Amino acid sequence: MTIETAIAALKDALGDRISTSRADREFHGRSETHFPDRPADAVAFPESTEEVSRIVRICADHGCPIIAWGTGTSLEAHAVPVRGGVSLDMMRMNRVLAIHPEDMDVVVQPGVTREDLNAELRATGLFFPVDPGANASLGGMAATRASGTTAVRYGTMRENVLSMEVVLADGRIIRTGSRARKSSAGYDLTHLMIGSEGTLGIITEMTLRLQGQPEAISAAICDFPDISAAVDTVIETIQMAIPVARIEFVDELTARAFNIYAKADLPERPHLFLEFHGSENAVREQAETVGEIVRSHGGGDFRWSTKAEERTALWKMRHNAFYAQKSLKPESDAIATDICVPISRLAEAVTETRADIEASGLLGPMLGHVGDGNFHCTFLLTPGAEAEKRAAKDLLHRLSLRALDMGGTVTGEHGVGIGKLGYMQQEHGEAWSVMSEIKRALDPDNILNPGKLVALN
Amino acid sequence: MTIETAIAALKDALGDRISTSRADREFHGRSETHFPDRPADAVAFPESTEEVSRIVRICADHGCPIIAWGTGTSLEAHAVPVRGGVSLDMMRMNRVLAIHPEDMDVVVQPGVTREDLNAELRATGLFFPVDPGANASLGGMAATRASGTTAVRYGTMRENVLSMEVVLADGRIIRTGSRARKSSAGYDLTHLMIGSEGTLGIITEMTLRLQGQPEAISAAICDFPDISAAVDTVIETIQMAIPVARIEFVDELTARAFNIYAKADLPERPHLFLEFHGSENAVREQAETVGEIVRSHGGGDFRWSTKAEERTALWKMRHNAFYAQKSLKPESDAIATDICVPISRLAEAVTETRADIEASGLLGPMLGHVGDGNFHCTFLLTPGAEAEKRAAKDLLHRLSLRALDMGGTVTGEHGVGIGKLGYMQQEHGEAWSVMSEIKRALDPDNILNPGKLVALN
Repeated sequence: MTIETAIAALKDALGDRISTSRADREFHGRSETHFPDRPADAVAFPESTEEVSRIVRICADHGCPIIAWGTGTSLEAHAVPVRGGVSLDMMRMNRVLAIHPEDMDVVVQPGVTREDLNAELRATGLFFPVDPGANASLGGMAATRASGTTAVRYGTMRENVLSMEVVLADGRIIRTGSRARKSSAGYDLTHLMIGSEGTLGIITEMTLRLQGQPEAISAAICDFPDISAAVDTVIETIQMAIPVARIEFVDELTARAFNIYAKADLPERPHLFLEFHGSENAVREQAETVGEIVRSHGGGDFRWSTKAEERTALWKMRHNAFYAQKSLKPESDAIATDICVPISRLAEAVTETRADIEASGLLGPMLGHVGDGNFHCTFLLTPGAEAEKRAAKDLLHRLSLRALDMGGTVTGEHGVGIGKLGYMQQEHGEAWSVMSEIKRALDPDNILNPGKLVALN
Repeated sequence: MTIETAIAALKDALGDRISTSRADREFHGRSETHFPDRPADAVAFPESTEEVSRIVRICADHGCPIIAWGTGTSLEAHAVPVRGGVSLDMMRMNRVLAIHPEDMDVVVQPGVTREDLNAELRATGLFFPVDPGANASLGGMAATRASGTTAVRYGTMRENVLSMEVVLADGRIIRTGSRARKSSAGYDLTHLMIGSEGTLGIITEMTLRLQGQPEAISAAICDFPDISAAVDTVIETIQMAIPVARIEFVDELTARAFNIYAKADLPERPHLFLEFHGSENAVREQAETVGEIVRSHGGGDFRWSTKAEERTALWKMRHNAFYAQKSLKPESDAIATDICVPISRLAEAVTETRADIEASGLLGPMLGHVGDGNFHCTFLLTPGAEAEKRAAKDLLHRLSLRALDMGGTVTGEHGVGIGKLGYMQQEHGEAWSVMSEIKRALDPDNILNPGKLVALN
């Protein structure tokens, strides 16, 4: 009953679909950010649900941890096997199984990435809206309850996964729901699995809700004299229930980063990046109304991107913001984080955080999906400078407490992983114990991504 | 350790806020439909979360069942205490605790009804959209994952409850989430509680998402030559992603019922009842587009209700459909049911069901929230006619199997209660066992609404 005996049994069962090569083990033990690496003991490459079930059963028999892996783009080290064990690389399960245009849904395996899915959907007039920036696997996005730039209009993974097939800790295969758009039949296991970060089950199939390609799309950017003016524009837009498709804040440091990294020519001031979806009339109407709000807060004129290729370039720039921000301090170590607050507290949260970063002396650009009250900070640290690292950790800590003080959450979309585990007790109180009780009921031996999300051992 | 000793202890703790009068016990043991009555052993009237917690602790100590009660408008007898015990009447906890217009949310106690909430919100320019017809308590609506006529646009309770305070089976009080619009911090206990029908916890407070009152609203009805034409119009409208606020189907029998009960003057043909929300332009544009779809399916002209009082009368008529349908056969016993299928199967589901009802010889009007693939049948039975009752049960059974065959669910919005419990195994398979495991983890002694929703004992 050890990890070693589990791997031996898996080798018998899987042949060359399990690897213990150093390269594979190390690759599946890394995170995109500042968390320590911890190589997996082995990496399995399942090709079917039944194979996932068989692997999980073997691991369960041997008490071996098992950690699902997608594209490795998590920012909180969700998939780092902190207690060792087998990394389950889901990327060979990457087929789009069925597209139902008439029902506006699609059935996918978890290793399909969001960009691959949208490429497959192109001819249907439909698209999958959830857009976290990284070309993440859809399984990983569901497991971390990902969202991104379009959540303000189309919701997060919470709103866009209709049902799942999941392999449980004992190898049982379940379906969490039907293809009906709504149901009152029993506990909502779909939502229990979304955001469970691989600790309750392994997602092997998903039915996702699709959206119709809007008749018209237009995108624009505009700059503001200060952060408050930009954020207040967002708050007023949301409160007027204007159905913007995207409304993204970037601060002056990020604007500068785009100028360096993406050769943009933005004034080094806070900006909003906007997108409008709808009929030609609706898009024009929305843009006019938001334009008035922008002007009333002293914002500049919209700079429009009406052509598809200009829009693509705009959002590509936005999506590469993390890498652009890193270019502000080449060779730096970057720590990325996010919080989410009620929109009424957003201006306060952003300006307090800006002041806090400035007082710390660190370089810390900010940006965010502010239409949801969600924003990000990136701290750029000199490698090896321990004082900077301590200052960044202190900033992170104060940021999390600020979110909780304001009735928000310590993570709006990055997830808990390793970085936010220490705040779960404070955010949830007794409800965190309930999460452990559910975990214990579904995974009594704690083999699914142990050491994450709940308080067990 | 009996129900009797629990009631004795509760009397000590609650004084006159617990009743064992026959009237109270019987009232809290009835359902709106055809299920057998089963009086509660006592009825408690808590006035605070702490009092709910105290009551639950006492019941837990004595192994006494405890069943939350709202307005008693459930159609599947969710709140009938089938194993006896204490009915927990939540209707004294009926305060709107905080309105946050800037965040477009509201904090309510569970005994607030949806009409009372909207009355309180009137001055804010905001409204709570979920509209199941009955003036149900918001706690009951969350517990049954209710929806209704506006779900096609605004979602069901699943999309409109941001977080809850819940008393668990051992009396612990938890909060399931923050006031942030999204979060990736831990298991989604909010959605676990929504639709759990009082079997996992007692809802004592909720934060609900609000919507802005649209600038313009218009409503219309139109008639169709046959059911398929009406349903195909709905399907095409949904597939074109036109954001209708309501799109309700009523069959020719229900049209006749409205003529009798509400003194309407509808042609006795299938109808759609529609409502459009948005800016003046958006509403006009939506109505024009839907009008074209209607004409292409041979539908008649829109009959508009532009004035607020006309619209109110229209939806009041629709909301009273159950009572109107009963007027087709005065003094009859009515059985109401619902299923939900993927929209691509909707026309087939509705026409097969219509034919099935006709073959049975029963009087069975139909209507539904067809934009979601959800529709209802009401069977009107001669009291005491056993053959009719058997025929109705057979119809219900075939209807449920039809939903499952088509990839749907046996209940889109009425919930499981007593009527659909027998289909849970077939709808969910192994996932139903998982529901029992969760129930056992959170309520090991099965005191919360025992005999409902899961397979325990």
